[in-house]
Amino acid sequence: MHSIHQNLSTPLSSSASSLLGQNKFIDIRTQSVSVQGKNSEIVVKCIASPEKIAYKTQVSRNENFAKLQAGYLFPEIARRRGAHMLMYPDAQVISLGIGDTTEPIPEVITAAMAERSHALSTVKGYSGYGAEQGEKPLRAAVASTFYSDLGIEEDDIFVSDGAKSDISRLQVLFGSKVTMAVQDPSYPAYVDSSVILGQTGQFQKDVEKYGKIEYMKCTPENDFFPDLSAVSRTDIIFFCSPNNPTGSAASREQLIRLVQFAKDNGSILVYDSAYAMYVSENKPRSIFEIPGAKEVAIEVSSFSKYAGFTGVRLGWTVVPKELLYSDGFPVAKDFNRIVCTAFNGASNIAQAGGLACLSPEGIKAMQDVVGFYKENTRIIMDTFHSLGFKVYGGINAPYVWVHFPGQSSWEVFSEILEKTHVVTTPGSGFGPGGEGFIRVSAFGNRNNVLEACRRFKQLYK
Amino acid sequence: MHSIHQNLSTPLSSSASSLLGQNKFIDIRTQSVSVQGKNSEIVVKCIASPEKIAYKTQVSRNENFAKLQAGYLFPEIARRRGAHMLMYPDAQVISLGIGDTTEPIPEVITAAMAERSHALSTVKGYSGYGAEQGEKPLRAAVASTFYSDLGIEEDDIFVSDGAKSDISRLQVLFGSKVTMAVQDPSYPAYVDSSVILGQTGQFQKDVEKYGKIEYMKCTPENDFFPDLSAVSRTDIIFFCSPNNPTGSAASREQLIRLVQFAKDNGSILVYDSAYAMYVSENKPRSIFEIPGAKEVAIEVSSFSKYAGFTGVRLGWTVVPKELLYSDGFPVAKDFNRIVCTAFNGASNIAQAGGLACLSPEGIKAMQDVVGFYKENTRIIMDTFHSLGFKVYGGINAPYVWVHFPGQSSWEVFSEILEKTHVVTTPGSGFGPGGEGFIRVSAFGNRNNVLEACRRFKQLYK
Repeated sequence: MHSIHQNLSTPLSSSASSLLGQNKFIDIRTQSVSVQGKNSEIVVKCIASPEKIAYKTQVSRNENFAKLQAGYLFPEIARRRGAHMLMYPDAQVISLGIGDTTEPIPEVITAAMAERSHALSTVKGYSGYGAEQGEKPLRAAVASTFYSDLGIEEDDIFVSDGAKSDISRLQVLFGSKVTMAVQDPSYPAYVDSSVILGQTGQFQKDVEKYGKIEYMKCTPENDFFPDLSAVSRTDIIFFCSPNNPTGSAASREQLIRLVQFAKDNGSILVYDSAYAMYVSENKPRSIFEIPGAKEVAIEVSSFSKYAGFTGVRLGWTVVPKELLYSDGFPVAKDFNRIVCTAFNGASNIAQAGGLACLSPEGIKAMQDVVGFYKENTRIIMDTFHSLGFKVYGGINAPYVWVHFPGQSSWEVFSEILEKTHVVTTPGSGFGPGGEGFIRVSAFGNRNNVLEACRRFKQLYK
Repeated sequence: MHSIHQNLSTPLSSSASSLLGQNKFIDIRTQSVSVQGKNSEIVVKCIASPEKIAYKTQVSRNENFAKLQAGYLFPEIARRRGAHMLMYPDAQVISLGIGDTTEPIPEVITAAMAERSHALSTVKGYSGYGAEQGEKPLRAAVASTFYSDLGIEEDDIFVSDGAKSDISRLQVLFGSKVTMAVQDPSYPAYVDSSVILGQTGQFQKDVEKYGKIEYMKCTPENDFFPDLSAVSRTDIIFFCSPNNPTGSAASREQLIRLVQFAKDNGSILVYDSAYAMYVSENKPRSIFEIPGAKEVAIEVSSFSKYAGFTGVRLGWTVVPKELLYSDGFPVAKDFNRIVCTAFNGASNIAQAGGLACLSPEGIKAMQDVVGFYKENTRIIMDTFHSLGFKVYGGINAPYVWVHFPGQSSWEVFSEILEKTHVVTTPGSGFGPGGEGFIRVSAFGNRNNVLEACRRFKQLYK
């Protein structure tokens, strides 16, 4: 017991750098070095420079990572943006690239998060581990707000730290032996997480596709909805509507065909509805509006683009208890196991914010945020229309998909960045089907959007 | 454009239940049902009851999930606790089972999180997507607070939403082809995530071990440090010190041997230091205190047990740039790719809390929280000592490992729950090496700990 008493009676210094009692450790470390011979520590220092490799483990690199092309799209764009800013230190660079929210979070929501934060320092308000699946009131509010009358219940809702994390957890759930299909173009996380899990073959440079992935081409010619008669059967089908990056939203009739296609093939549909609140036309906001979807579909969604939670991190995934593997085992039971084993629930403070989002005031506030970005979208669409471009998306999504026929997306991206200091996203970054397009994001403050549009008019006048 | 204008001029009702315009959708849904025939929706309702399966997908269940035994340990204990509370609705059940923190978070930390929350509703204070690896000031503070003079730099630190999530991300990083070793007993997330990734064989009921996992037995006989001469070479070695569940902390000399063992075998060591601040004796708090560790080790850690962040969710993983695969490729580069593709960073509010934790006041406050739980630990140890039990751990960890020679851990767990209404954790839940032990957690408020100890004295007097 003594040591505990000693420790408590002589607390460690409270200065950060000496938290671990560095001085003592240095002595001991030097002493330890001599155990292995004086050189070992010097060696450790040497190999900081890559050309001098002192030691390598005998663990083989996971071959799936070697298949991945370049960096993940958005860090790559951030890198190019950074390089541009070094070249033009005085330029006012505007980002309409990565779909990053810029509007402050409505106060009704931040107040709830601040309140929860303060409560955590009180005996009454403190809580430790929450349910891995999310706090009951939030699961219930998500079910009643977004799925009322659609037969989705509280226990079908799994609260997460965001759609991207859940997409990867779903890939871990499915494992390396499934086959998958994606819209082409599509959000890169579907394909990259599939590659990482080993579901795919190598990247084929000639067609710019990974082997064993079914790319469902979505172009103006097919109204951005794949010709399902030309799509091979896969175990998993990722489908995003309203779509990132094309901004198009599938109609009810199209989604009825998609659900029927999944059913005919015995496929599982992973439906990304992260932009559902941006739908203006009479189109579905959830796949579960389609009869029978609960037997074939999982829905992934997020608070990021409704409440500006891109940094707060909160989303949810719906795995209906009616969704069964070929042996009759419920998919939700294994997903629950993933959530309990590989995740410990979203931050309780973020969940308090999510609950506030779903109060009547919160919903109104989210609608105002969505409305603001939709007005940005209109301004961007009008600009490109006025310049004679063919423009897609925008009506039901915060993304405008601009056509540059016959041109390379990366070249267009670079020219726009070079000449207007505006960051967009090259369509080909979302798959070969995006070549010849750029995605212009409507996330940005109004003045930046107006200024970017002025510069576009200068460039393309 | 029209539809947008319409939408903005006629905002959706702000009442939750009609957010998605239910009434309209009901009509359309009924209409859609008739497209597929009136029965389909009724069918959907039917299959909610498992015995009536209307439809199964043709997707095979991921075989790795079928290998998993029972539920993840802690939800299983929660289940048994719930069942007990139903049987004894009036009993005052005390949980010293799952290591869940109970002390409020120090105000200096919650104040910073509340401030960040409020700031998010201002133009100046709002931020969207942060760096996936964590905010620069927090990465720098973690490096200087815990690894100053150990040669770990800011860019070696990856901030996460907790150790459990990072353990799984590490498993995805390594992939399904690696072999792994764990301490026996050990924190179940290591083994379960390995099973889920397909690194293991089937569970062998006779020995209660999974095939292809090297179990490194840790018992009182070997001072809870494995006999490395008897351990087969694996690609990955999970090692937790101070240990969950045994509460023992490895000595510097033992860790020097462990690092040398990893080096001799070319293995990667995943070192879990989530309880480092509980170390009272002169033992390492980080594997990087051991010379050469940067070439073989990854360290996973967490704010959960220092600041009561079990619900707030914040941790970090150190992947030194010196750690290389057999082909010389830096492990950190692939881990960074995982973090960018499968994760979007920890909640910015939690990160503000983490930064406050590492201020001088925050560190002092964390030391007080740790000191409080260490006093609980002393009370629990004294109790079992006074009852003549052999007691291990406790000195350098918030866990007391009590020996019940020749008895079944689950039976001891059940008897204690039945007769004292105190929830503990059966040692065998952490692996066969834990059979005959129970883990008593020191997380709990003082009165509950004292009351639990009174009841133990009643039961075993």
